Amino acid sequence: MSTVNGFQGSNNGYSNGFHASDTTGKIITCKAAVVWGPGEPFVIEEVQVDPPQKMEVRIKILFTSICHTDLSAWLGHNEAQRAFPRILGHEASGIVESVGEGVEDLKTGDHVVPIFNGECGGCAYCKCEQTNLCTKFRVNPMKRVMDADGQPRFWMASKDGEERRPVYHFLNVSSFAEYTVVDSACAVRIQPAAPLHKMCLLSCCISTGVGAVWNTANVHEGSKVAIFGLGAVGLAVAEGARLRGASQIIGVDINPDKMIKGREMGVTDFINPANCKNPINEAIKEMTKGGVDFSFECAGNLDVLREAFTSTHDGWGLTVILGIHPTPRLLPLHPMELFDGRRMVGCVFGDFKGKSHLPEFVEKYMKGDATYKLNLDGFITHKLPFEKINEAFRLLQQGKSLRCLLHL
Amino acid sequence: MSTVNGFQGSNNGYSNGFHASDTTGKIITCKAAVVWGPGEPFVIEEVQVDPPQKMEVRIKILFTSICHTDLSAWLGHNEAQRAFPRILGHEASGIVESVGEGVEDLKTGDHVVPIFNGECGGCAYCKCEQTNLCTKFRVNPMKRVMDADGQPRFWMASKDGEERRPVYHFLNVSSFAEYTVVDSACAVRIQPAAPLHKMCLLSCCISTGVGAVWNTANVHEGSKVAIFGLGAVGLAVAEGARLRGASQIIGVDINPDKMIKGREMGVTDFINPANCKNPINEAIKEMTKGGVDFSFECAGNLDVLREAFTSTHDGWGLTVILGIHPTPRLLPLHPMELFDGRRMVGCVFGDFKGKSHLPEFVEKYMKGDATYKLNLDGFITHKLPFEKINEAFRLLQQGKSLRCLLHL
Repeated sequence: MSTVNGFQGSNNGYSNGFHASDTTGKIITCKAAVVWGPGEPFVIEEVQVDPPQKMEVRIKILFTSICHTDLSAWLGHNEAQRAFPRILGHEASGIVESVGEGVEDLKTGDHVVPIFNGECGGCAYCKCEQTNLCTKFRVNPMKRVMDADGQPRFWMASKDGEERRPVYHFLNVSSFAEYTVVDSACAVRIQPAAPLHKMCLLSCCISTGVGAVWNTANVHEGSKVAIFGLGAVGLAVAEGARLRGASQIIGVDINPDKMIKGREMGVTDFINPANCKNPINEAIKEMTKGGVDFSFECAGNLDVLREAFTSTHDGWGLTVILGIHPTPRLLPLHPMELFDGRRMVGCVFGDFKGKSHLPEFVEKYMKGDATYKLNLDGFITHKLPFEKINEAFRLLQQGKSLRCLLHL
Repeated sequence: MSTVNGFQGSNNGYSNGFHASDTTGKIITCKAAVVWGPGEPFVIEEVQVDPPQKMEVRIKILFTSICHTDLSAWLGHNEAQRAFPRILGHEASGIVESVGEGVEDLKTGDHVVPIFNGECGGCAYCKCEQTNLCTKFRVNPMKRVMDADGQPRFWMASKDGEERRPVYHFLNVSSFAEYTVVDSACAVRIQPAAPLHKMCLLSCCISTGVGAVWNTANVHEGSKVAIFGLGAVGLAVAEGARLRGASQIIGVDINPDKMIKGREMGVTDFINPANCKNPINEAIKEMTKGGVDFSFECAGNLDVLREAFTSTHDGWGLTVILGIHPTPRLLPLHPMELFDGRRMVGCVFGDFKGKSHLPEFVEKYMKGDATYKLNLDGFITHKLPFEKINEAFRLLQQGKSLRCLLHL
């Protein structure tokens, strides 16, 4: 894997060079990577981006990267969720170009990280400490237009006198475009000193993986941890566990390259199921004298999920599901198995409330707080210009990249 | 339902009348209700009860009652768990007759409540605050003999020169006998002033139901609760929730008689699925504006379990499984459903560590502590002499009794 250079210093001049825009209130015509059908190559098109409406924000995207959820939506794995033409992408960072009516916590020039799991701050869920699901802006893969008026903000310009055609949104963000419009609940202001190319990762994989460890599982010093699937989220779990002082971090992946990357991120032991004669849960129970305290499923595979569950210690083992499971199959668990004290929970966006928690996260990271010393650079294995988005998808599909950063 | 009188005062004279026994070290011949085959009537037989071995205790059982787990074992629902002849029964109270070598925390004359989920106090599990499962003495329906020597302590006397025949143990207790032998890890000493006929209920249903609310779920003031199945355990859940100040306690049962009993125990709303046109979870979501905070499944039915799960509020709802599910069917849940923030956990013996927690429970109950004012009498709907055990089973099977107390 190649490592990345560049993207250093004060946000490539953006942070100081961005001033009150003269595009406020106007349609912006810019480039976007549009998908026209399941699995069809992205086409860089000129799209019109409408101004933000009430409680919305228009963001100039500076960096975006690609997550398996984008891959799955691109391939159209779930037929019911298909909507084309569409602008995918949900892991990104950028700068506020303009804000709509009523937006008070964001202004032109603010550095922001968009979040697919929004936080309106006012609903019963946002006011409840036990959940980070917002009534209106939680993850909704069926959603394709804005709440304010049921319309998209993206359009293909009219041709030959016909009406302009809608282009659909994705996962509250749609970052594969030079400009996007999101609800203000889905944009987190971060300090301008933070390097936006790294902050891009907080938009999904880092927050998800690290938060699963810190918030959902509350891994503690000396904990034993197993991670099934060492993609970016799995490795973010490893980073989170390393920073919490876990004594054993077992990585499980069929890709032997992940072992090398895993070691950098705190993985202490590696299991390649292809080379393991016994069921993985037996191997792990043997390595840990009874099972891990916490397992994290980041593979999106039900059989793997079962191994993750049975790999935990009975009495107190907790399995956190992070993988997306498109299968119609049900959980391969018998109810009586829960009487052995093992538990299983799902986790969205690392149980972070994005707008409440991420600014402090960034602050501590920037201060070099010992418990926040994340190796973010290690996740950016490739960088490409935005136009090479199809190549970036191939890298992810082939398991060659963790995160390929696209710069716009 | 008839209510029970009697069993008042200082334990019917037992507490003062029991002295150092002259049966120590000897075989005791006494009556026991023996099951000879699945579903066959209990036969009151003379059995020999061997003296307690190392770390064991022989208990004179004064009261025992019948739980659905006994019913299931009697009917032999699970073929692999069948073992006959057998002495069932695990909810009881009594007095220590003698103790085996090494037993230091119990002595002849102590009032005890046997527990099917033991606590050795020394293993890694017993030392862990997160679980009440003991390495050696956790619930094990396959176990039929004592750990010390792999032999039962119950025998049918030899006849015609043949060797005496073993009679098997059940669930670490076997209380359907005048005397039983249990591991000292499975006997909890309680204060002698506590009325043993009521304390019998702490041996299973009360601890299980109340503990599920207090320990497993940690229900708090103002919580909304739904209980599926208003048997003794379900009603103990209601009692626990009432004492915690739950604002809404919805009872679900197909037996309309349970409504009356439920009201006594704190049930505020009653749903009879037979009279409910919509799915129960929809009815509950409507009644509670979004779902209950906690649901408790006490029916042992997977479809009911799914209703219990979907009846909880997304974001934070917790379902506690208390029912035994003999079906080979797997959990009717899709993994992605866990991303809505609902959780499901199993609960054994109310997550009480029996020997550590029950003495304090009894103490607070006896002191009249406001948070322990349980209506134990309300659970004892019938009393019968031990010999009428077959009638007691019929009452439970027909849903006519909550607990029928058998006195020996």
